[in-house]
Amino acid sequence: MAGPAFFFQRQAGTIPVPIMGKGQATRTAISPTRAENYAEWYQQVVRAADLAELSPVRGCMVIKPWGYALWENMQRVLDGMFKETGHTNAYFPLFIPLRYLEREAEHVEGFAKECAVVTHHRLEAGPDGRLVPAGELDEPYVVRPTSETIIGETYAKWVQSYRDLPILINQWANVVRWELRPRLFLRTAEFLWQEGHTVHATAEEALQETLHMLGVYVEFAERYMAMPVLRGEKSAGERFPGAVNTYTIEAMMQDRKALQAGTSHFLGQNFAKACDISFSDRNGALVHAWTTSWGVSTRLVGGLIMTHGDDDGAVLPPRLAPHQVVILPIYKDAGQRAAVIGACEALKRELTQATYAGEPLRVAVDDRDLRGGEKNWHHVKRGVPIRVEIGPRDLAAGAVSVARRDRPARERESLARERFTAEAPAVLGRIQDGLLDRARAFRDAHTERVGDLQAFEEYFRDEAGSGFAVAPMAADAERDAAFQELLKRLKVSPRCILSTAGAAGDGAPPDRTCAFTGAGGAADTVFARAY
Amino acid sequence: MAGPAFFFQRQAGTIPVPIMGKGQATRTAISPTRAENYAEWYQQVVRAADLAELSPVRGCMVIKPWGYALWENMQRVLDGMFKETGHTNAYFPLFIPLRYLEREAEHVEGFAKECAVVTHHRLEAGPDGRLVPAGELDEPYVVRPTSETIIGETYAKWVQSYRDLPILINQWANVVRWELRPRLFLRTAEFLWQEGHTVHATAEEALQETLHMLGVYVEFAERYMAMPVLRGEKSAGERFPGAVNTYTIEAMMQDRKALQAGTSHFLGQNFAKACDISFSDRNGALVHAWTTSWGVSTRLVGGLIMTHGDDDGAVLPPRLAPHQVVILPIYKDAGQRAAVIGACEALKRELTQATYAGEPLRVAVDDRDLRGGEKNWHHVKRGVPIRVEIGPRDLAAGAVSVARRDRPARERESLARERFTAEAPAVLGRIQDGLLDRARAFRDAHTERVGDLQAFEEYFRDEAGSGFAVAPMAADAERDAAFQELLKRLKVSPRCILSTAGAAGDGAPPDRTCAFTGAGGAADTVFARAY
Repeated sequence: MAGPAFFFQRQAGTIPVPIMGKGQATRTAISPTRAENYAEWYQQVVRAADLAELSPVRGCMVIKPWGYALWENMQRVLDGMFKETGHTNAYFPLFIPLRYLEREAEHVEGFAKECAVVTHHRLEAGPDGRLVPAGELDEPYVVRPTSETIIGETYAKWVQSYRDLPILINQWANVVRWELRPRLFLRTAEFLWQEGHTVHATAEEALQETLHMLGVYVEFAERYMAMPVLRGEKSAGERFPGAVNTYTIEAMMQDRKALQAGTSHFLGQNFAKACDISFSDRNGALVHAWTTSWGVSTRLVGGLIMTHGDDDGAVLPPRLAPHQVVILPIYKDAGQRAAVIGACEALKRELTQATYAGEPLRVAVDDRDLRGGEKNWHHVKRGVPIRVEIGPRDLAAGAVSVARRDRPARERESLARERFTAEAPAVLGRIQDGLLDRARAFRDAHTERVGDLQAFEEYFRDEAGSGFAVAPMAADAERDAAFQELLKRLKVSPRCILSTAGAAGDGAPPDRTCAFTGAGGAADTVFARAY
Repeated sequence: MAGPAFFFQRQAGTIPVPIMGKGQATRTAISPTRAENYAEWYQQVVRAADLAELSPVRGCMVIKPWGYALWENMQRVLDGMFKETGHTNAYFPLFIPLRYLEREAEHVEGFAKECAVVTHHRLEAGPDGRLVPAGELDEPYVVRPTSETIIGETYAKWVQSYRDLPILINQWANVVRWELRPRLFLRTAEFLWQEGHTVHATAEEALQETLHMLGVYVEFAERYMAMPVLRGEKSAGERFPGAVNTYTIEAMMQDRKALQAGTSHFLGQNFAKACDISFSDRNGALVHAWTTSWGVSTRLVGGLIMTHGDDDGAVLPPRLAPHQVVILPIYKDAGQRAAVIGACEALKRELTQATYAGEPLRVAVDDRDLRGGEKNWHHVKRGVPIRVEIGPRDLAAGAVSVARRDRPARERESLARERFTAEAPAVLGRIQDGLLDRARAFRDAHTERVGDLQAFEEYFRDEAGSGFAVAPMAADAERDAAFQELLKRLKVSPRCILSTAGAAGDGAPPDRTCAFTGAGGAADTVFARAY
C-alpha cells in the first residue's frame, strides 16, 4: 500500500502529460484505452462514470445524476459570472414561427437542414384506432435551434429609446438541432445551454460586450474546467449564420483534435434589421440597434472528460466535481461497522467545515453495501478528486488512507488524520492547478508553427502526429477552391484567427504572407481536425 | 409624510384581510382594481410588475427578468428541499415517441387533445420558394406534456434488482400542453416546472414518498410563498391521468377561487407495468415496481401574485423577493447627487452584511435617471418588501424614509438610519409572517361547512359570495349524473378530500352522509370554483 509520499506534492512536477502510449503495465478500468481507440474510450468513460446515455429518442441523451450534477456546477459558476457582469436571466418560447426564422437569410439557411418542426397540436384516433397527428397548424413552428429571431421579435417591442439600452439578458434553455450521428454531450439533437442576447446603442459597445463575454468563457474554461483554450476570431467560412464576427474559444482534446467550447457573436445590425429593433437616439433620430449573442452548452461536459480523463475513467477538476472528497468505510463485520462509519461521518463533518475556492468542501460518505474494491473503482471511474479509505486499522492508528485521482489509481498513502484534514483544501487546489498545467503542456507540445503549404500538408498527413498548426491565412483564402479542397481532403478546418481577439498568439501583427494563396495581409490562424 | 409609527409593527395586527371593497379613497396604480375586475387586474399586475408578457407564439409567454428572478428563487429553495430529502437532478429528452405515450391508456387519453406534435426534421424550399417542412419522421414525436412514459422507459433499463431501488430523481424542464386560452403563468402552452419521478420496491414506500413530497410542497407554499394551502386527496374524477391517487395542495386566491398549486401522484404499478419497470426482489422473484411523480410549475408565480397582490401591484414575500430592500436616492442636482448616492451605496453595503432567513439581505440601489415618484411607483408595482428613500435632508438628519409594501403605498416613516439597519431583517420577518396570517385569515373567513345539497347550491349561487365549501362527498358521487350536472352548472369542482392526507380538515372521520347522493361513508371534501 505505502507508496512514495506523493499526496501533498504539486502534481505537475511528478506526472508529465497524459500517458497515451500503448503497452501499459497494469489493467485499466476503461477498455479500450485512449491510445487504442479514443472515440470508443470516450463513450466508455461517459458510460462508466454514469454521466449520460443515449435515449430511445433518436439523437437525444439522458443526462444521468452524476453528469447533471457536473452541469449544475458549471451552470452555477457561469450564472454567477453573468450576473456579476450585469446580466439577468429571462425565458423565451421554445417554439419559433417559421416566418421569423426566415427573416435573416443566412441564419435560416444555416439551420434549415436540422430543424424539428411542429405541425400539429393534438392526437386523434386514426383509421386503425392508433393515434395520429391532428389539428394542423396554420403555420409550422420550429423547435428553437437558437433564439436570435424569437428574442429579437420581443426586444423590438421593448426597445424604443436609447434609455432602454443596453439590454443584457441570458437564457438557460434546451435547444434542438437534428443530428443523425449523435455523440454524447458533443453532438446531440437536444442539448442544454445558455444563450446571452444583448442589445446596444453603438457598434463599439456591442463589440466590447462580445469580447468581454468571450473573456468570461476563457476564465471559466481555464479557472474552473482547468481546460486551457485559445481565443480568437472565426474565419468567414466558420461564422455563426447571420453574425458579422464570431469569436471562439478552442481547446485541444487528448487525441489532439480541437473542440469549439464556446462562441460569442457580434451580430452587427443584421438581426436588429431583420427583427426591426430600432430606437430614438439622443438626437431623436430613429436608428437600428446593435446586438450580440453568446453561448456555451452541455458540450463542455464532453470537453472536460476528453481533456482530463484517463484510462481509468473521468478525472474531474475539484472546482466542478460534485463531490471533491469521497470517504469509503472499510469493515468486515457488523462489529467493526458502527465504529468505522462513525469515524467516516465525523471526518465528513470536519471536512465540510473547511472551504475550498470560497465554498464548503463537497464530501460524501459511500456506505453502500458493496465490496471495497468495487466501491473504490466506482469513484475512480467517476473522477472524484480525493478518495479516502478508513478501516479498523486506520482507526486504531489515527490515520486515513488517501488517493488522488490525478495520480495512478493504485497509488495510496497513509496519513495522520489531522494532517489530511488540515491540508485537504490545499491539495484540492494543487490538483486543480496541476490539471490545467498538464493540459496546457500537452497542448503546447502539440502545437506547431507551419510556414507553407507543403509543411501544412506534411503536418496533417499522419493523424496520430498532428495537433494544432498555426499558419498565416489571408482573409479571403477560404474562397480559394484548391485550398477548400485541401482542407476537405485533410479533414482539417481553420479553428480561429489568433491575432484579433487580444489574448493569444505570439503577438505578430496580422500582416504575413498567406501560406495557402500567397496573398499579403494574412493573419496567424490555428488549424486542426475538430469535433 | 409622517404617518403613525408603523414600520416596526407586526403587520397582521394593523391591517385586516385584503381590501376588496369598492370606492377606495385614493387612486391606485393598477386599473381596474381587484374589486372591479379581478381577472383583468391580474393581467395588469403581471404587466405593471414586469413579470411576463404574451409572446408572438400562440399560448406561450416571455418570462421577463423580474418574473424569472422570482422563479429562480423558488427553484433554488425547492431544489434545496428536494436534495435534502435525498433526491438528485437529471435530464430526460424533450420528445416522446408516440408509441410510448400510448402505453398507458388513461394517460394518453388525458393528454392527446393538447399535444404539440413534431412530424418533420428539416425545412426545404417549397414551390413558391418559401420554406416548408421536409424529412417526415417515421414516427411522430410529442413534445413532453409530462415525462412519466419517457422516464419510465429509461428506468426500466436502470432497475434490475431491489438493490437498485429506490430511484429518487427530479427534473427541471419545460413542458408543453397546447392551450388556446392562455393566462400568463396560470395556463400557458409552454411552462417551466419540476417533475419528480421515483421508483420503489413496495407500495407503502411509494405512498410514503408521495405524501412526503406533498408535505414539502405545503412547507414551501406556506413558509416561503406565505400562501396557506389545504392538502388532500383528489377525488377520482380529478386525478392525474394514469395515477392511482393524486394528492394536491389548494390555495385560495383573493377572488376566492381555488388554485391547484402542486400535485403528488401515487402511480401504483400502472406506469411500471406500462414501461416494464420490474426487479428481482430479495427472494429472487421478478416483480413490478411502484412509482410516484410530483410537480410544481411557474403557475406558482401566478398564485403568489393573486394571493398577496393589491390594487397597487405585486406584493412579494421577503423570502422569495429578488430584492428585499430597494434604496432610492433623491436629489435635485449634481451637487447633491454624489453625497446621496454615496450614502445609498454605504447603506446597501451595511444591509448586505446582515442576514434574513440565513442569507445575506438582497438589496438594490436604483440610481436610474428617473423622477423620484416614478421610480418609487416602479418598485411599489414590482412588490419590493421595503423601500428606502434617502435625500439631502435625511442625510443631514442621519435618517432614512422607509415604506413597507404590505402597508398602503403612500405610508412612509422617517427613522434613524441605525435603527433601520439594525431592525431591517426582523421587519422582513414580520412582513413575511404577516402576509401568511393575512392570507390565512382571508381563506378561513371564506370557507364554510355546507351540510346538504340545498345549502351547497345556495352557497355557490352568487359568485361574489362564494369561496371554499366543505361538504361530505361519497367516493362514487362523481358518477352521479345529476351531481355532475349541478357542478357543471355552478362551475364548481371538488378540489380535495380533506381527511385523507393527514394534516387538514376538522379531524372528522370519513364516514358522513354524502350531501349529494345520500350514500354513507362520505368524506369531507372542499369544493370551489377554480383556476
